[in-house]
Amino acid sequence: MSPFTGSVRASAHWEHLRVGEEDGVVTVTLARPDKLNALTFEAYADLRDLLAELSRTRRARALVLGGEGRGFCSGGDVDEIIGATLGMDTAQLLDFNRMTGQVVRAIREAPFPVIAAVHGVAAGAGAVLALAADFRLADPTTRFSFLFTKVGLSGGDMGAAYLLPRVVGLGHATRILMLGEPVRAPEAERIGLLSRLTEEGEAHPEASALARRLADGPALAHAQTKALLTAELDLPLSAAVELDAATQALLMNSADYAEFHAAFTEKREPQWRGA
Amino acid sequence: MSPFTGSVRASAHWEHLRVGEEDGVVTVTLARPDKLNALTFEAYADLRDLLAELSRTRRARALVLGGEGRGFCSGGDVDEIIGATLGMDTAQLLDFNRMTGQVVRAIREAPFPVIAAVHGVAAGAGAVLALAADFRLADPTTRFSFLFTKVGLSGGDMGAAYLLPRVVGLGHATRILMLGEPVRAPEAERIGLLSRLTEEGEAHPEASALARRLADGPALAHAQTKALLTAELDLPLSAAVELDAATQALLMNSADYAEFHAAFTEKREPQWRGA
Amino acid sequence: MSPFTGSVRASAHWEHLRVGEEDGVVTVTLARPDKLNALTFEAYADLRDLLAELSRTRRARALVLGGEGRGFCSGGDVDEIIGATLGMDTAQLLDFNRMTGQVVRAIREAPFPVIAAVHGVAAGAGAVLALAADFRLADPTTRFSFLFTKVGLSGGDMGAAYLLPRVVGLGHATRILMLGEPVRAPEAERIGLLSRLTEEGEAHPEASALARRLADGPALAHAQTKALLTAELDLPLSAAVELDAATQALLMNSADYAEFHAAFTEKREPQWRGA
Repeated sequence: MSPFTGSVRASAHWEHLRVGEEDGVVTVTLARPDKLNALTFEAYADLRDLLAELSRTRRARALVLGGEGRGFCSGGDVDEIIGATLGMDTAQLLDFNRMTGQVVRAIREAPFPVIAAVHGVAAGAGAVLALAADFRLADPTTRFSFLFTKVGLSGGDMGAAYLLPRVVGLGHATRILMLGEPVRAPEAERIGLLSRLTEEGEAHPEASALARRLADGPALAHAQTKALLTAELDLPLSAAVELDAATQALLMNSADYAEFHAAFTEKREPQWRGA
Repeated sequence: MSPFTGSVRASAHWEHLRVGEEDGVVTVTLARPDKLNALTFEAYADLRDLLAELSRTRRARALVLGGEGRGFCSGGDVDEIIGATLGMDTAQLLDFNRMTGQVVRAIREAPFPVIAAVHGVAAGAGAVLALAADFRLADPTTRFSFLFTKVGLSGGDMGAAYLLPRVVGLGHATRILMLGEPVRAPEAERIGLLSRLTEEGEAHPEASALARRLADGPALAHAQTKALLTAELDLPLSAAVELDAATQALLMNSADYAEFHAAFTEKREPQWRGA
Repeated sequence: MSPFTGSVRASAHWEHLRVGEEDGVVTVTLARPDKLNALTFEAYADLRDLLAELSRTRRARALVLGGEGRGFCSGGDVDEIIGATLGMDTAQLLDFNRMTGQVVRAIREAPFPVIAAVHGVAAGAGAVLALAADFRLADPTTRFSFLFTKVGLSGGDMGAAYLLPRVVGLGHATRILMLGEPVRAPEAERIGLLSRLTEEGEAHPEASALARRLADGPALAHAQTKALLTAELDLPLSAAVELDAATQALLMNSADYAEFHAAFTEKREPQWRGA
């Protein structure tokens, strides 16, 4: 937990997401299964605010994002979001689209790994949430659909035109974002969109096991690895190498690095503190 | 069509390319089949000027680039280009190489998707033209040859050292540009260089069908998807997310977005206007 | 050889590496086989200084980096490096980590292709040295282990968080650097980490043959191809295209470009000078 606390108190309850927490592993479930977990304005706001809170309080060492029922997330609700935006003025439209982008930035910049556990449909904003995660564990029922052009919008939604080419290359990304066609699990695995293809029904249990392992391991090392991967996409080689040097010098003063060496010398398993 | 027209008139005739146009789909054919469509100074100039004209007049909603005869394009003509450059002074050499680079920039920055229909040889500048396209549809006879080092030049020609690593990764790109060896269709598909591997002889018909579908669809959404993919290769995540937000806010005022919602509500197919 | 020589003399002997040189091909062997070629402070310093010397004297037209014995390189020595860093102050830690980063920058910025010949273990810094090379030739016994988090450090060591996403994509890179799990030869080939998978025991002979071919070919063209690939990862498209234009204009004045045209015209093989 961070010692840097001011007046702001932790939120007592998240109304638009199901949030569980157990010894450093936070599990966030999109839980509107009758709507294939379609996102609402309030669900976006809760994702934004939850990620901000977890990032500042340092309670989370890993986070699992999944969906209840038949799929992961069908994206923005056609009535509650698309319909509503048709009546918005310019400032409101910009506010809404900035909020969704803030969720993606919050995922990429969170000081803990985020693991998307995907099954069934991951469409529109749902596909981008999974794309923004550090790990995508998906079962064979998975179908990513970056279907933005099919509703008349840009495929570059919430950072997708930045992230997807960096994950699968510009050729595949162009095809997927421009045409909006589904990417099924075997193709997703082949082009590098998946961290792991699991057995059917196993994406969520495996994501939870991975989160537990990451949270119980050298969590500061994991957090810094993520921070550097995120930052160095936007840095030249010279600055990246300098950032790596400063980071490793810092971590060579960490408890976990000394613990590794002690454990190695004593021929025992390290007892990681995440610090 | 753009309302922003001044004194410049559309070119009446393209002497060094075959150019067809049908309801928003422009088809450009490299048509020197006896020379495997080797490029001349004039063909480069026509490509540069045609793309500029199409970009400013907004007549095109999709473009197909193909080659007549046994292959796509064998690159710069050995006599008419390589031989001629040996007699040029420094300013002329720079002018020539800037012109070829302008063709690639014009493809990447055109406000419509460009589809390369590839069969047989795509060598040298021909390979880079295909690489700069948004889609590469290729049949099994296809052979990309980034053969620049084999003539004593840099593999980084016309943006190839920028584009290829972003399409297939730095490892493959280094091997391909440094050694100049042919990349045949199966390898091209495996490493992500192809959007689609077609049956023999089907690259051009499938490219035309895709262009028709893109032109008849939400063409403004397609154009913005392309613009964002192009721009966000060069932006940090924070700026990319802001650009996405502004673009989506803009498109949420578009006719096609409202049409999608109306069609969805009325359970009918959308009538896209591309605006 | 470069004419730009001042007071500095070439090092007479490299104590911590085995270095051979034959007509433009330099072979560097990590030669502590009883320690699986674990790196020491002195070996890093020798790599840094050797690469600087070769880059400035222009003696090398290609370099092969390999390891003697059962594997390529097991990374930083647990006792001689990890143990020693535990007693270092902040300035020393930063100096050490900057030195290792300088080796990676020196590999990427060397004016000649670097070919890693990999077999057996390539772990920690050993994996990053191979990653920084232009070519990775590996045999089926190869096992890359970016195991930094397993010792409590950041996976972003020596530029790995910059380079790996650009070689294999962000998804694979995150998994590999965060979890520190081994990447065996078939996976390495599948995700684009290998330039070529050789038969067992053939990585080093094939690397030597490739180096010979590169050194005997148009070596200035190879060097510029590498320089552009390295630079253009960090440039926007517009600058990349301008850099390409200036570079090709330059090389169109080179001896090798004229020689290509003469040889083509005379229907003989070019006699490359690398100039």
